[in-house]
Amino acid sequence: MDKLRFEIDHSCTSTKARAGKISTSHGNIITPVFMPVGTVGSVKAISQKQLYEEINAPIILGNTYHLFLRPGTEILEAAGGLHKFMNWNRPILTDSGGYQVFSLAKNRKIKEEGVWFQSHIDGSRHLFTPENVMDIQRSIGADIIMAFDECTPYPSEYTATQKSMELTHRWLDRCFTRFDETGDKYETVQNLFPIVQGGMFADLRKISCEYISQKDAVGNAIGGLSVGEPEEMMYEFTALCCDNLPVEKPRYLMGVGNPWNLLECISLGIDMFDCVMPTRNGRNGMLFTTKGVINIHNKKWEKDFSPVDEGLQNHFSNYYSKAYLRHLFAAKELLALQIASMQNLCFYQWLMKEARKQILENTFASWKNEFLPVFKRRL
Amino acid sequence: MDKLRFEIDHSCTSTKARAGKISTSHGNIITPVFMPVGTVGSVKAISQKQLYEEINAPIILGNTYHLFLRPGTEILEAAGGLHKFMNWNRPILTDSGGYQVFSLAKNRKIKEEGVWFQSHIDGSRHLFTPENVMDIQRSIGADIIMAFDECTPYPSEYTATQKSMELTHRWLDRCFTRFDETGDKYETVQNLFPIVQGGMFADLRKISCEYISQKDAVGNAIGGLSVGEPEEMMYEFTALCCDNLPVEKPRYLMGVGNPWNLLECISLGIDMFDCVMPTRNGRNGMLFTTKGVINIHNKKWEKDFSPVDEGLQNHFSNYYSKAYLRHLFAAKELLALQIASMQNLCFYQWLMKEARKQILENTFASWKNEFLPVFKRRL
Repeated sequence: MDKLRFEIDHSCTSTKARAGKISTSHGNIITPVFMPVGTVGSVKAISQKQLYEEINAPIILGNTYHLFLRPGTEILEAAGGLHKFMNWNRPILTDSGGYQVFSLAKNRKIKEEGVWFQSHIDGSRHLFTPENVMDIQRSIGADIIMAFDECTPYPSEYTATQKSMELTHRWLDRCFTRFDETGDKYETVQNLFPIVQGGMFADLRKISCEYISQKDAVGNAIGGLSVGEPEEMMYEFTALCCDNLPVEKPRYLMGVGNPWNLLECISLGIDMFDCVMPTRNGRNGMLFTTKGVINIHNKKWEKDFSPVDEGLQNHFSNYYSKAYLRHLFAAKELLALQIASMQNLCFYQWLMKEARKQILENTFASWKNEFLPVFKRRL
Repeated sequence: MDKLRFEIDHSCTSTKARAGKISTSHGNIITPVFMPVGTVGSVKAISQKQLYEEINAPIILGNTYHLFLRPGTEILEAAGGLHKFMNWNRPILTDSGGYQVFSLAKNRKIKEEGVWFQSHIDGSRHLFTPENVMDIQRSIGADIIMAFDECTPYPSEYTATQKSMELTHRWLDRCFTRFDETGDKYETVQNLFPIVQGGMFADLRKISCEYISQKDAVGNAIGGLSVGEPEEMMYEFTALCCDNLPVEKPRYLMGVGNPWNLLECISLGIDMFDCVMPTRNGRNGMLFTTKGVINIHNKKWEKDFSPVDEGLQNHFSNYYSKAYLRHLFAAKELLALQIASMQNLCFYQWLMKEARKQILENTFASWKNEFLPVFKRRL
C-alpha cells in the first residue's frame, strides 16, 4: 500500500477553499473534513455503528496522551492496534500528546530531551520525547500521526515564543528521524504530519511554515491557534499559515472550532479540522443546528414538540423533540448526551458535505455569506 | 378499540409456565415478557431505536412518581401523553408511584386519604391519593396502569402487614371507582391492574389474592416481593400467589429480578416482569451473558479480545470485545454504559424468547434445569 495522497478536485474561484480527496490505507477521506474526537478510543456517548451509519464520519481522532495512559501500548499492541481494539475500519489520526501534556498533565518539566510530566489520573511520572511519542503512535497504529511539539500559550512574549518554536523544530527533526527508522507495526501505512508553531507573530509563523514545508511531508498541520486569542487573530494567522504552506498538501488546523470558524477557515485554505466542541458542548446542552444555536436548557423549549433539527436527514435529529430532549437534560438522563452529541456531530458532517458541494459548484462564498449568520444566531 | 386481552397459547406440561399473548391498543405482547424500565421516559443509556431494532422490547415501563415530578402532567398532556412525548409506539406500563414514594421520597406521612411526601429532587410537598394517582396515570396515558398500594417493608410484623394490606385493599376500591369514572385521554385504551400485598404471611397473601381476584381485572400483579427476603421465600410466595390468582389472566411479578429469578418464577406461573437490574447492574459493569455472569472490571478481561457475548445475535454483543469494554469502564467512557445496558437488555429479551420457545415445545423444565446453573455462574 502507498503513503497518504491528496488530490484537489476543485479550487474555489472566489476564496482559497478547496475540495479534495485524501487516500489512506483505511480508505478515502473527502475534504474539507471534520474529524470527531475519540479521546481514549471512543467518541464520547456515541457508538461505532452510529459513527459509521448515522454520522458517517470519514475519519476520527485519538489522543496519544490519553491512549498511552489508558489502555496503554501493551494492550493496544496485543489487540493489533487501535483500529482493531475499538473495531473501527476507517482512518484514524492521533495527535502527539503535546497539547494534552501542556493542558492536562501536572508538574511538567520541559527539557531539550522532551517533557517530564505526571499523569492527571494517578500522578505517575512519565517522559515524552520526540522518539518515544513516535514509538507510541506506531503502537497505536493511526493512519496519520502528528509530530511532538510544544504548544505556546496565549499570550506569550516574542522571545519565549521563538525559543519554543525552535525547540519544536529540533523535536520535529528527531520525530522524522525516528519515524523513518521505524516501520509500520500493522497493515496500516502511517503518515507523519509536522506542526507549524510560532504563536501570534507573523515572522515566526512564516519561519515555521518554511521549516515545516522543507520536510516535504504528505500533509501539514497548524498548531497553537484557538488557544484564547481573539477570533480575528485566529483567522489572520490561519490565513498567513495557509499562504505559506504548500498548496498541494492537505492543511490541518488543529483544535478548531465552532461551525462559523470552520467555514471561515475553509475559505482561507484549510482542509482538515478536529474539535471537542460538538461533543463537549452537546453534553452541556448546546446544540448546533441548521437554524442556529440552541441552549436546550431554556424554558422556551419546554413545550416545543418540534424535532431537534428538521434541516438534517439523520434519525436522531428528526425523531426526538426539543421538549423531550430538554426533559432528558433536566432529569440527567444519559440519552440526552447521546441525542445532543449525535445532533452536533451530524450537523458538523452535514456542514462539511455542504461546504464541499458549494465549493465544487463555485457557490461557496455566497453560500457562506448567506448561511454563516444563520448558523451563528441564538435561537 | 378493546380492553386488554390475554390468550394462553400453551401451558407447560411439567411446570406451571405458560406461553401467552397480551393484546393492547399499542399492539401485542408475547409472554413471558420482561419490561425494560424507562423511569422518566427513557430506558437509561438506550435510544428508542435501539429498543425497537436491537433489543426488540415489546413493552416498556414508566414510573408515575418520576414522571409526575419531571416533566409533570402538564407537559405530558400538552405532548399528547407519554407515548408521543418519548415517541414510543409500543405498549407502556406505568407503576402507581407507591413503591417510589416508600423507597425514594422524604418525610412521607401515610394517612387514610393517601400519602404526603416530599420530592427527592427539590423537597416540594405532594399528596398521592388513589384518585389522583389514577388521574396522573390517565395523563401519562400508559396501556397498563397500576393501582396505588402500600408496599410493606421486609421484615414486618403480622399486624402491621395486615393493616397495610387492608389499606391497600380500600385504596384499590377507590382506584377502581376513579378509574371507572374517568375516560381514556388519548387513543390508548387504558387497563388497570390491582396489586396483591400481604407481606410474608401465607394467610394474608391468600386473602389479598382473593380480594384482588374479585375485581375481575384484565390482569393482576404481585407486589411486596424481592424487598430483601431470602430468595427461597420469594419463590414460595410467588408460587402461593400464582396458585391463588385467576389462571386466565396475566400475572405480573413486580420488580423481579435476575435471570434465574425470572426462569424460576416463569415456572411458577408468572407472565410479566420488570426490573432495573439489567440496566443498573450493567452501568456498574455486571454483565449477564449466555455463558454466565461477568464482572467486566476484573483484570482477567484486560486482553480478552473475544466479543462480549457470542451467544447473542445482536450487534453490540458481537461487535465490541471484553477488553475494549473493560477499558471503556476504566476510562469512564459513556459508551461503556450503552454497551453494558444493551448486552443485559438483549440477554433478558433473548431469555424470555427462549423460555417461550421451550414452553411451546414442552421442554421448558429440562432446559431450565440445564441452563440455569450456566446463566448463574461467575465467569
